[in-house]
Amino acid sequence: MSTLDQIKGPADLKALPAGELDGLAAEIRARLIESVSRTGGHLGPNLGVVELTIGLHRVFSSPEEPIVFDTGHQSYVHKMLTGRQDFTTLRQAGGLSGYPCRAESEHDMVENSHASTSLSWAHGMAVARRLQGETRPTVAVIGDGALTGGMAWEALNNIAADKTLPLVVVVNDNERSYAPTLGGMAEHLATLRTQRRYEQAMSWTRRSVQSAPVVGHAAFDVLHGLKKGVKDFLAPQGLFEDLGIKYVGPVDGHDLGDVENALRLAQRFGGPVIVHVITQKGRGYDPATNDEADRFHAVGKINPETGLPLEVSGRAWTEEFSEELVEIARERQDVVALTAAMLIPVGLDRMQAAFPERVFDVGIAEQHAATMAAGLSHAGMHPVVAIYSTFLNRAFDQLLMDCALHRQGVTFVLDRAGITGSDGASHNGMWDLSLLGIVPGLHLTAPRDGVRVRQALREAVAVSDAPTVLRFPKGTVPEPLEAETHRDGVDVMTEDGDGEVDELLVAVGSMVPTALAVAERLRAAGRTVRVVDPLWFLPVTDGLLAELRRSGNARVSVLEDGLVVGGLGQRIAAELPERRVRPFGVPQRFLDHASRGALLAELGLDVEGISTVLLG
Amino acid sequence: MSTLDQIKGPADLKALPAGELDGLAAEIRARLIESVSRTGGHLGPNLGVVELTIGLHRVFSSPEEPIVFDTGHQSYVHKMLTGRQDFTTLRQAGGLSGYPCRAESEHDMVENSHASTSLSWAHGMAVARRLQGETRPTVAVIGDGALTGGMAWEALNNIAADKTLPLVVVVNDNERSYAPTLGGMAEHLATLRTQRRYEQAMSWTRRSVQSAPVVGHAAFDVLHGLKKGVKDFLAPQGLFEDLGIKYVGPVDGHDLGDVENALRLAQRFGGPVIVHVITQKGRGYDPATNDEADRFHAVGKINPETGLPLEVSGRAWTEEFSEELVEIARERQDVVALTAAMLIPVGLDRMQAAFPERVFDVGIAEQHAATMAAGLSHAGMHPVVAIYSTFLNRAFDQLLMDCALHRQGVTFVLDRAGITGSDGASHNGMWDLSLLGIVPGLHLTAPRDGVRVRQALREAVAVSDAPTVLRFPKGTVPEPLEAETHRDGVDVMTEDGDGEVDELLVAVGSMVPTALAVAERLRAAGRTVRVVDPLWFLPVTDGLLAELRRSGNARVSVLEDGLVVGGLGQRIAAELPERRVRPFGVPQRFLDHASRGALLAELGLDVEGISTVLLG
Repeated sequence: MSTLDQIKGPADLKALPAGELDGLAAEIRARLIESVSRTGGHLGPNLGVVELTIGLHRVFSSPEEPIVFDTGHQSYVHKMLTGRQDFTTLRQAGGLSGYPCRAESEHDMVENSHASTSLSWAHGMAVARRLQGETRPTVAVIGDGALTGGMAWEALNNIAADKTLPLVVVVNDNERSYAPTLGGMAEHLATLRTQRRYEQAMSWTRRSVQSAPVVGHAAFDVLHGLKKGVKDFLAPQGLFEDLGIKYVGPVDGHDLGDVENALRLAQRFGGPVIVHVITQKGRGYDPATNDEADRFHAVGKINPETGLPLEVSGRAWTEEFSEELVEIARERQDVVALTAAMLIPVGLDRMQAAFPERVFDVGIAEQHAATMAAGLSHAGMHPVVAIYSTFLNRAFDQLLMDCALHRQGVTFVLDRAGITGSDGASHNGMWDLSLLGIVPGLHLTAPRDGVRVRQALREAVAVSDAPTVLRFPKGTVPEPLEAETHRDGVDVMTEDGDGEVDELLVAVGSMVPTALAVAERLRAAGRTVRVVDPLWFLPVTDGLLAELRRSGNARVSVLEDGLVVGGLGQRIAAELPERRVRPFGVPQRFLDHASRGALLAELGLDVEGISTVLLG
Repeated sequence: MSTLDQIKGPADLKALPAGELDGLAAEIRARLIESVSRTGGHLGPNLGVVELTIGLHRVFSSPEEPIVFDTGHQSYVHKMLTGRQDFTTLRQAGGLSGYPCRAESEHDMVENSHASTSLSWAHGMAVARRLQGETRPTVAVIGDGALTGGMAWEALNNIAADKTLPLVVVVNDNERSYAPTLGGMAEHLATLRTQRRYEQAMSWTRRSVQSAPVVGHAAFDVLHGLKKGVKDFLAPQGLFEDLGIKYVGPVDGHDLGDVENALRLAQRFGGPVIVHVITQKGRGYDPATNDEADRFHAVGKINPETGLPLEVSGRAWTEEFSEELVEIARERQDVVALTAAMLIPVGLDRMQAAFPERVFDVGIAEQHAATMAAGLSHAGMHPVVAIYSTFLNRAFDQLLMDCALHRQGVTFVLDRAGITGSDGASHNGMWDLSLLGIVPGLHLTAPRDGVRVRQALREAVAVSDAPTVLRFPKGTVPEPLEAETHRDGVDVMTEDGDGEVDELLVAVGSMVPTALAVAERLRAAGRTVRVVDPLWFLPVTDGLLAELRRSGNARVSVLEDGLVVGGLGQRIAAELPERRVRPFGVPQRFLDHASRGALLAELGLDVEGISTVLLG
């Protein structure tokens, strides 16, 4: 049995002789590469935090000293060190979650995969524990990328003011979130990294730790040179200390001894302290470290030797948007694009290459992206904000108050809309239709195929006095689906005569192919069926309502891959209260991780499920 | 004619001899006190920015050099200097808005009254203008309080990275947002303020400006001591420069000469620069400067001599919550409370006085408040987050992903819910019911009177496995409204027998008195009417649905002071599609400023409007 497989929890790790730790780290890396290459998952971030996570669990006693991982995709090593070494079913239904998961382990605290929350969680937990008389620290592990998010700033600002709160903030600085981290904070971290020769600082750290008889405030102050004189020799001055938070670092995140020393000091400090750890994303795996674009941030199934993808997937939705945007940008000088630390995943890399001065990566800062877009629009540009659907939740107020209230022509392109599945509850883009339905004046469409993505994007950027939204799912775009006819803003996909029918299926975006397949089954059972794609459906158009009236007494079903509550079905029902409208959509609960297909089937949103209901 | 009344725009101001400016400032202050004491409004903030605003409009050429005011309640002086001196109808229907308003003036840019947005707006505008070949700067004016908001950090982080962007950030530092500003940033600003004797810095500034032959980067660098040697003499080092943003200050915000000098330097710098201006909220008006609690941040009608309120208003909704929370906190050690820079307006001052260690003012940081609350809950406390309804929009993602997904027992108390009116579109709390309706597992109630506020708060803090929400309006609480009977979680306010009736009115919170008055009119017309208060109505309860069934074929009307879209009416309709449900609520548009009563009447949500429809 390997050393790794003998570890049932942090106590086993603590009991290991120091001499075995490098071997353990190597085992963990081999296991990560072997497992994740088979299942897909977040490989690069976890390869980078092997020693850091070993250090965390050797120094702190989880869960009594709770460790909160920001974003959570870098928690695989943590899972292995808390008794979860079997990664064969990672991110599959019933298997290990790709994020911390309370149901899996008492060592897992926060399941939310949205970035920049860990400091707020840890602040709350630390304050509660102090009120309860607990003196042991709470730990948050946050990436340099997540520090660009406003929430992290709000938390730091509060933590800094509480001088006696035992809270250890470990900054895992790999100089990148998904891609290289940008902005003033990133430059500041770079300054800290290069301010002095690393070796010098480290050897001084070791000497001080060995010689300091009392560890506590005094030793800490000595170590970090806070006493006059020493200060100028060692302590990196800067932003964190300006705010009033003690700073330890930089520490080589791949030197276990240094990591442990720094964490032990922080553990005993008795106040808020930042430990700045330098790590390398993809560490120990050449295909990852050689990949400048994203260091294997998240991969599908790959050949573990070469790092090359095993599955040739089809054309992605993102590609259609990505290419068309460049075309539009070529024609229109006023079109600019924004992303929140997701340049490649949302397909803005093409425009970045063609028009670098017109693409803005604002960091993990959706709020800023939305309001900066309002400002760009007010000054005469047309911004396209490309973002994952689930992350738009972060910018609701800015969309409402800055974009919509001010009638700014801003286009939001929501990728990974609907059910994404394997990343779990907080990655699903199932909230957008209901949320956006609240915003006055906003126009929304869910393209059904690549042709429609391109057409919709052109329609969206032509609107100059209101926000517009396109949303499409993760994955592969279907073959183009041509409409039989077009009536008054609505695509009639399949007609059955232009008057009354038995069944009218209104299908949104990626549900159009499902609706067409359902229609075939219903027709096989002898029913007349019409399928319409409403194209733009926020606000509900007169053309769509006309189609409902035209269909006579047809039973109306609305197929959407968002919440039923506040979705298109309920909107149509509100417009035409005399008609019975049956919504097929996502129920109002958080979904466990599983594949998109498995979840759609489980929710009865596949061809089988919908047909069964309508034929039943 | 006074000097003030001769100013039709910034050009007139610029033409004034410097010797007349102090007189102008005095006139402006007198006008502010005279006008706002009659209408109510934001008095303290505007008294503090008189010289600053004069300086801004003398130095910059609005609108070609656009000036964005953060939050906007400090724009009264700006309005006066851009030709709007008549404040007699301030915040009334058809009168001047209490915030910048594009319809009023080309000098007004941003109408959103939510804090911390100005840097993002200005960043977008500055970037757009540069792309268009414009070299003149864009200006943002932001308070020290608003700098505690995460959005401001996100923007600063981006602005800092763009070394050649002509963007002037004026930090209006009055050491308080609504109340004294808290946190690491506030302490850092305090350090900057006290780092050197102010007079010394200022006289040095004046000498440098007079002697510098070339104004631009070089002179700027000399002025701010960025050259080695001088640096240590003058330049306040710190957070902003760590981020890479040039810093000018501190400047006495009531010395017009100093203000103008600093702004002129910033104007010509050609890159992002912060001008740190120290002002005194309430300046020049003793009742305000003597008021340590809030410096007359916002007042009702007052006696201009004494500052004492003219109208004795009744008991506020806030009081009921405020008192009951202290009672609960006395009984339960685990109950803690959070506010986002609104301690007094949301009524947490009482609990702060009684249990200071259990109240947390996190600054203008709603995101942090919600997630810190999740952390407090996870560690065993029951947090009560007291916040204005409209500002909860800022924390939607945190409510959804941190509180609801993790099933944390967190109670949100939304003050100023529904229509608030006079503060305009972005202050109305009309979004909450639809927004919260999206969140799985969340429980919501809208108490109808003070008794119910207290009862509902106790019910809310008893829930430990889901977020709960109470929401109530601005203003005066009505006399207690006793129910005729209580059935299965629903209060039946007036019965007309317990079986079938002609009309069933379901009324939410502050709409209950309206419903009772409507019921009287309907009865006078011979109809049988039942009025029910559903108490907890997210999720829709079985008890409420049972009442609908019990009412036979009654026409069902739902009265709510939130959006119709996504509101209770639409939810009931979705649950019972066979029943016709008529929602009376707020239409999906942004509302112009006017009194709450006037807006309710305009929207047909008063007794007259609803009765007319139901009798029609």
